[in-house]
Amino acid sequence: MRVLGIDPGLRNMGWGVIAVDGSRMRHVANGVIHSTAAGDGRDLAARLSQLFRGLCAVIAEHRPDAAAVEQTFVNKDASGTLKLGQARGIALLAPAEAGLEVGEYAPNAVKKTVVGVGHAGKEQVQHMVRVQLPGVVIDGADAADALAIAICHARHLQGRTLREARPRQGVA
Amino acid sequence: MRVLGIDPGLRNMGWGVIAVDGSRMRHVANGVIHSTAAGDGRDLAARLSQLFRGLCAVIAEHRPDAAAVEQTFVNKDASGTLKLGQARGIALLAPAEAGLEVGEYAPNAVKKTVVGVGHAGKEQVQHMVRVQLPGVVIDGADAADALAIAICHARHLQGRTLREARPRQGVA
Repeated sequence: MRVLGIDPGLRNMGWGVIAVDGSRMRHVANGVIHSTAAGDGRDLAARLSQLFRGLCAVIAEHRPDAAAVEQTFVNKDASGTLKLGQARGIALLAPAEAGLEVGEYAPNAVKKTVVGVGHAGKEQVQHMVRVQLPGVVIDGADAADALAIAICHARHLQGRTLREARPRQGVA
Repeated sequence: MRVLGIDPGLRNMGWGVIAVDGSRMRHVANGVIHSTAAGDGRDLAARLSQLFRGLCAVIAEHRPDAAAVEQTFVNKDASGTLKLGQARGIALLAPAEAGLEVGEYAPNAVKKTVVGVGHAGKEQVQHMVRVQLPGVVIDGADAADALAIAICHARHLQGRTLREARPRQGVA
């Protein structure tokens, strides 16, 4: 089973794909899709289109079975939040259009699953991604976050599978 | 020439198509695409997919040559702004994926063009939409706003055409 993680952003959309076999995980690919900044004639709609096509190409190439997107909480101004929301809409749409269920995780939930604590720093997250995906070469901070989201989703799906496999206990 | 206007929203995505011939305008169609509210098992990604497909169907049926989306400013909380941003990303993406240039107008700019004043109320906007598109039957407030955005974009495109048609003056 392959899991795609996406760290949404208008300028940099991080993505990472891992393969999961039982409790073992393996790195498949990771990267960052860039959308050209405004000011050089590209309007916002064209930038979103660029991100959408980039994600569709990643999905077509690596054929994930599940996807998850970071549920970003923002402490920026309303204009920054709106921009992030637009990019996040694309990050959710691309896998949904490919027929995938899309999980959502808050940054603290990702850190808690991958590092063990909800308030871990970026370096700790990257370190634990490297530990859990031996040999991975990470394409920058946004791709590392995307791999962490994929790992988090894989762990949750494993938990779900275990719970579903366990016979239900009757109530006396 | 046909112009599509979109009033973005996660629950209700208003749309309106008008036909423009010189300075004359005619109503073509309008409506609202609904996405089922969360709580009945549909996740956010599936709702965005629903909106995207709805807009793609409108574009396929009414074949607009240009599109515009309201540049919503929000005075809600960050979570509401993020939700709106996600829906707005879809509203910008659908026409861009159909190869259309997508204009963006702030609500005050739309009101100023359609009603004449930037602080017009919803009723005044609906009234002027009815005056400018005789015989129109409007499918609610969100569709009225979408038609107003289409009228606004058409007026701006007309202005651009007039400016481009005028011979440039040489610099002495």
